[in-house]
Amino acid sequence: MMNTAPLKVAVLGCGVVGTEVVRRLHTSGPALAGRIGAPVELVGIAVRDTRRRRDLDVDPGLWTDDPLALVKRGDIDIVVELLGGTEPARALAVAAMEHGAGVVSANKALLAEHGPLLHETAAVHGVDLLYEASVAGAVPLLRPLRDSLGGDRITRIVGIVNGTTNYVLDRMTETGGGFAAALHEAVDHGYAEADPTADVEGLDAAAKAVILASLAFHTRVPPTAVHREGITEVTAVDVADARDLGRVVKLVTVLERAVGQDDVLLRVHPAMVARAHPLADVRGADNAVLVEAADAGPLLFRGAGAGGVPTSSAVLGDLVTAARRRVLGHRGAAPQAAVKQTASVAGPRSRHHLRVPVTDAATALDDVAAVLRSGGVGIGTVHRRRAAGQEALVLLTKDTDDATLRTALEAVAALPCVSAAPRSMRLLDAEEGR
Amino acid sequence: MMNTAPLKVAVLGCGVVGTEVVRRLHTSGPALAGRIGAPVELVGIAVRDTRRRRDLDVDPGLWTDDPLALVKRGDIDIVVELLGGTEPARALAVAAMEHGAGVVSANKALLAEHGPLLHETAAVHGVDLLYEASVAGAVPLLRPLRDSLGGDRITRIVGIVNGTTNYVLDRMTETGGGFAAALHEAVDHGYAEADPTADVEGLDAAAKAVILASLAFHTRVPPTAVHREGITEVTAVDVADARDLGRVVKLVTVLERAVGQDDVLLRVHPAMVARAHPLADVRGADNAVLVEAADAGPLLFRGAGAGGVPTSSAVLGDLVTAARRRVLGHRGAAPQAAVKQTASVAGPRSRHHLRVPVTDAATALDDVAAVLRSGGVGIGTVHRRRAAGQEALVLLTKDTDDATLRTALEAVAALPCVSAAPRSMRLLDAEEGR
Repeated sequence: MMNTAPLKVAVLGCGVVGTEVVRRLHTSGPALAGRIGAPVELVGIAVRDTRRRRDLDVDPGLWTDDPLALVKRGDIDIVVELLGGTEPARALAVAAMEHGAGVVSANKALLAEHGPLLHETAAVHGVDLLYEASVAGAVPLLRPLRDSLGGDRITRIVGIVNGTTNYVLDRMTETGGGFAAALHEAVDHGYAEADPTADVEGLDAAAKAVILASLAFHTRVPPTAVHREGITEVTAVDVADARDLGRVVKLVTVLERAVGQDDVLLRVHPAMVARAHPLADVRGADNAVLVEAADAGPLLFRGAGAGGVPTSSAVLGDLVTAARRRVLGHRGAAPQAAVKQTASVAGPRSRHHLRVPVTDAATALDDVAAVLRSGGVGIGTVHRRRAAGQEALVLLTKDTDDATLRTALEAVAALPCVSAAPRSMRLLDAEEGR
Repeated sequence: MMNTAPLKVAVLGCGVVGTEVVRRLHTSGPALAGRIGAPVELVGIAVRDTRRRRDLDVDPGLWTDDPLALVKRGDIDIVVELLGGTEPARALAVAAMEHGAGVVSANKALLAEHGPLLHETAAVHGVDLLYEASVAGAVPLLRPLRDSLGGDRITRIVGIVNGTTNYVLDRMTETGGGFAAALHEAVDHGYAEADPTADVEGLDAAAKAVILASLAFHTRVPPTAVHREGITEVTAVDVADARDLGRVVKLVTVLERAVGQDDVLLRVHPAMVARAHPLADVRGADNAVLVEAADAGPLLFRGAGAGGVPTSSAVLGDLVTAARRRVLGHRGAAPQAAVKQTASVAGPRSRHHLRVPVTDAATALDDVAAVLRSGGVGIGTVHRRRAAGQEALVLLTKDTDDATLRTALEAVAALPCVSAAPRSMRLLDAEEGR
């Protein structure tokens, strides 16, 4: 059955993304109607302060500061939730679905924290729940994972999914400067928020990892179970060491299946990425995600990861998809595939870069190597480096788990020839990208 | 309404891809059932010769040499069409839909030639028509174009969508040898068919361009209207010239909107691609497609473009998608968005590489440059080259249309200082990839 009556859309939140979405609903009406098969009518925009002047030419009667009343009207077809954060976004999304509306969201915190509840609610009420914009901005990634790869077995995902940290690390690489200066610059240029904690501590990337895991591995992981290291401790010396090794420091998000187990390991951490890896040349606020599937092999998705205009593209794509289904009379949401609760294990095995400050590199090497080896840390290559007047040994380890490395490094730090605390960073090698 | 009775699937064709699809339906049954919400039952495999031994452990009663009877059974939920070619694939797909089955196809020739008819049939009978595997193999591309970018305005697509030609050009680049030897090698290694015409003449890429245009631009272009140049005329000297210019020869497929018009230009041709362009490092039989959208910006999709196993991933993804909708009781296919008939104009403007063999480069330059300029061809940079004992001028032009260039080159060829026919190849610059 075809329904060509106008589809009623409500938008919650009118920040950077919301403004662009409202603008496009206004200006692209005929094009969208052609693709959907029915016109789209914007019936309300919920904001905190309706008196604030906005650069949008819309009917003043659309503004409201009562989002709950808006989603409970009962005649809304699609609610676009762009508030961010978990509350009141969760309560509003649930109320919208209970009142028969499909929900389109760009809210990664909401989906990471309450994805299972929201999917259940959508299935019970037979409405759509779509959130392509919540991970990797404009890059079409969630729909390919859920649908295109729905008959395959995804084995590993490694990506750069936070544009702010990528911009900061990029600037550190380009200028040779430290973290604080690069972050300051990112805030100045609008690439970082005034409170950048969620980005630089990896919380944003961890939320995205949880969403990706639910679609790729059909598994529920609480955001707190993601192994997480931010970039606040990355130094100019780390960045310089990476460059000397033909690498570049990136904040990577890795999802992989534990060998021989059903468990999924999720981790967010800085890594020295080999230049030949497809993630190494991802610049500025771009995002890129490498998905490895048993049959499809490695697939790369890359594009703009943030910004109001690119993100509005993903939101509108979901809106068009949900609207088309309404027009066709499809009221049932696909239920989430059999979801398995899983514990994420921290401390996966990796190769590491080690920098060990020493009083005399020539004489220290034997002692340092012996302590590492007896601690169970295999050594690949060794370099001698001098930076900021400090002599140091730079060693690349073989695959090592976190606990073994930590214990061995404590023993190294206690050696008389070692002049300061050793540093370590994981490596991401080129062959992990093919 | 949920329907959890087994879904009946018929497979037409059991070649390289069909074998892998049947194998996975057999071995991945429980995983697929979990994601679909109902078990999948393979009820028939149509092949030309049922007596041929195949390495598949399936019920012998499934084989049939009567595909029409199979698709007309009336109880089939999904027909997977893997025959290739336009007939009898078209007739069988139509019959399948008329008898209530959704159709999943990997057949680019079928969709390029009969896409509009098939979409109409699907809409009339309320069944799904999905064909992700028809372009770029395992790379999820069609679903993102149709759905994820459904609210955006796609402005340009440039891609490498034919693995055979990419492999051949790769080998020419690596060995410095000619086309014939590289093609021979491709046939030997199974990267090219015994009759490679469709690949090397660009017919395969042109069919894919038509499919991409229908989804990206909502327009119908007959495959014959695609401007098409194959790779059979590419020489070792072209490849060497490209390398000297920091470029690499690729067969590119370009879709773009004519400036200020609604017309869409589709073209397939060899190009000297700048090393910094994201398509330059696509190796072997891989595919990569760069999609530019007004809001999303440039998006890159990359992965395995061919092969039985990767392609089966895309086929199964479509099968799972169509099956999920059946389970949910969704019988309506989304109609194709308002499709506009459009003529594709050949001869778009490009920068070109020119190689002009001359008797004496020092004295010839003035004459050659004067003739080109008076013919309306702007000249960017000029190099002097010697290859295979032949002196030549290598010039990079400014943007020029095909007709202007051809006329000017005829005048250049008539110059007394020009010792052999000039050659030309289009350029694809790095800034066209960002």
